[in-house]
Amino acid sequence: MKATIVTIGDEILIGQIVDTNSAFISKSLDKIGVETHEMLSISDDKQHILDTFKKLQNKVDLVIITGGLGPTKDDVTKKTFCDYFDDELVVNPQVLAHVTELIEGFYKRPITQMNKDQALVPSRCTVLHNQVGTAPGMWIKKENTVFISLPGVPYEMKYLVEHEIIPKVVKEYKRPYILHKTILTYGQGESMVAERIEHWEDALPEFVKLAYLPSPGRVRLRLTARGLNKELLEQEIDKQVILLDAIINDIIVGYEEDQTIEVVIGSMLKKQKLSIATAESCTGGSIASLLASVPGASGYFKGSVVSYATQTKIDVLSIPSALIEEFSVVSAQVAEAMALSVKNLMKTDYAIATTGNAGPSKGDGDAEIGAVFIALATPTGVLVEEFNFGQPREKVIDRAVYKSLEMLQKEIIKFV
Amino acid sequence: MKATIVTIGDEILIGQIVDTNSAFISKSLDKIGVETHEMLSISDDKQHILDTFKKLQNKVDLVIITGGLGPTKDDVTKKTFCDYFDDELVVNPQVLAHVTELIEGFYKRPITQMNKDQALVPSRCTVLHNQVGTAPGMWIKKENTVFISLPGVPYEMKYLVEHEIIPKVVKEYKRPYILHKTILTYGQGESMVAERIEHWEDALPEFVKLAYLPSPGRVRLRLTARGLNKELLEQEIDKQVILLDAIINDIIVGYEEDQTIEVVIGSMLKKQKLSIATAESCTGGSIASLLASVPGASGYFKGSVVSYATQTKIDVLSIPSALIEEFSVVSAQVAEAMALSVKNLMKTDYAIATTGNAGPSKGDGDAEIGAVFIALATPTGVLVEEFNFGQPREKVIDRAVYKSLEMLQKEIIKFV
Repeated sequence: MKATIVTIGDEILIGQIVDTNSAFISKSLDKIGVETHEMLSISDDKQHILDTFKKLQNKVDLVIITGGLGPTKDDVTKKTFCDYFDDELVVNPQVLAHVTELIEGFYKRPITQMNKDQALVPSRCTVLHNQVGTAPGMWIKKENTVFISLPGVPYEMKYLVEHEIIPKVVKEYKRPYILHKTILTYGQGESMVAERIEHWEDALPEFVKLAYLPSPGRVRLRLTARGLNKELLEQEIDKQVILLDAIINDIIVGYEEDQTIEVVIGSMLKKQKLSIATAESCTGGSIASLLASVPGASGYFKGSVVSYATQTKIDVLSIPSALIEEFSVVSAQVAEAMALSVKNLMKTDYAIATTGNAGPSKGDGDAEIGAVFIALATPTGVLVEEFNFGQPREKVIDRAVYKSLEMLQKEIIKFV
Repeated sequence: MKATIVTIGDEILIGQIVDTNSAFISKSLDKIGVETHEMLSISDDKQHILDTFKKLQNKVDLVIITGGLGPTKDDVTKKTFCDYFDDELVVNPQVLAHVTELIEGFYKRPITQMNKDQALVPSRCTVLHNQVGTAPGMWIKKENTVFISLPGVPYEMKYLVEHEIIPKVVKEYKRPYILHKTILTYGQGESMVAERIEHWEDALPEFVKLAYLPSPGRVRLRLTARGLNKELLEQEIDKQVILLDAIINDIIVGYEEDQTIEVVIGSMLKKQKLSIATAESCTGGSIASLLASVPGASGYFKGSVVSYATQTKIDVLSIPSALIEEFSVVSAQVAEAMALSVKNLMKTDYAIATTGNAGPSKGDGDAEIGAVFIALATPTGVLVEEFNFGQPREKVIDRAVYKSLEMLQKEIIKFV
């Protein structure tokens, strides 16, 4: 079963916003064994939409469209739907009641004609009721292809995917299983890893695919198995992971089953009743916000001191100014002191500290652009590592964030 | 002049990563008057790539491909290039020298055959030299279409777009001008704004397009003008903005010329030599990390106390526990105290504080899920506002972050 995801909107084509909807939809489809064949972003021009529908007709089973719906946008998309499906717009009473309730009842605003028009849908479509917004989703089948239209607002789209589309597809279609397992390695480059596991890779069965997902400093290896027998797929993946582990055990740091490192760390900390705090300079709170993005983070994440200015390090973290003068603000000694200070301040088991110069120009002190010190305070001591992440600025911040979490994960994994 | 952007990689099609490369490329093209016709994500399967190339041949002027390059991936993409362009791979001595220098000189690793193979390129392509990585970019023309292949690693792709592709396109092609101006409004919904400006919108000239970009609580209006006479376009946009301002002056809060709110705030603070700090609970450091993401932020951003746990509010921000007991941790009083405390601690002119319950379940205290208090301490007092951002969690955090920055911007704009 194959799907194509189509995003409608000029704001995407001019790069004003990044399309995150497609990734969410494809991930949701992947979990139920529906393969995303292509993703496509097109303009909100009627002819462009019609041409796209024609091209996709009977080429895939599902076409999921986001964007192009909303009080000022309905016109083009809905009229295009009517044109393509040779249908006409009718008022859906349930949608009208819902829109009226939301606007007048919840938002306490007078309802406008544009609001009311949101209840207009093609007569032959199945309405997907949007409980978290005003624009309804639409499901309409032509020949062998189902066209599904969703609003572009991410949480409305997500609501409809989770509550309407996935259950409906699961109920109405037979699908194979698609299983993934991602092995996290670090310390060696992609080409080095590839050469070490070459024989293992060549011997993988037909129905298991390997992908290399390199980022600076680490390589993730993703195994994907596809087939009708779920148990067989699971057995094969487990077997291959054991074989792989025997070859590159020295660089494997963990496994991801569709989980990000902040989620993995969160569940490890929770399980062991351990807590964490951060003291961040060059990362500016990015480690804290990543830790806090996980539901239930309040169980183990106590907080952070973002000591961006040197004076803040002195005032809030009580770093002695003599230490800063002697070693400079970007130094192993200051990173270590920051980690110990915040660990003490917030009474945690672990603490991460970062200090560096993200660039593009030299900041406080005279540290090289790209230089970062990361300190990890543990129940038994402090580790400090020095890096140079080069440029640009966003890469330095990003790598410092993930390197910090990797250092933390490596430490706590010892107790699992 | 039209371009299509093609992203190659199964990791995108299964939703494992979000494609941010396409937005960067289209934004860069838009600035020099090249229109992105479509964006497309496809699998790293040879036939899929070939079919895509065929479909795009002579339909657009530029096809920019990212992904599918790298030590373990070169094979498919480069061989597909050779097939499609009827060419063969040859060693490029300059690339070989660069790869060798990078691996042996900078990374101090033995060079592998896979590394060396990165210097293989189709004989007729123009090599785009990648100074920040090992995989070279390639530029190759067939009939009326130029195909450009770039590595998928974002900073390598960005380097090649900025230093190689944009200058080359500017030099070799004539292009029209595309100008955008985005007007920020808040306080009224999309349909309400649309009805108020209907007559103005209907009277816009042919070459000016209007787009509504709604997010919860605010609507951005984007004007786009396209044409050969830059001065004329600028005059028309200015004129239309003045006309618009006369109609909805009460809800316009600012303008974006391709700038995010954190950049706009940064330059306002810098110009007026003012400083800012944050005390964050439910936003977990997201406001801090957004402020710190701007180059030169150290000039005005002093830092943050992320007081995620209640005890951290007491220990680090010295919030009296009696205040928390009396009003609860999610309250106007605690938000106000947090803002004043961090302002005092970090000696800044402004301070933002957030406390709320992002959900999905109830946290410390008994606040409703979605409830957030935002306090803004200014040189003359403290403002506090109460919100309920509903659910899901990411929406609550996101809206709290942007609402905080909007409150700050509204305050400092008074002094500009």
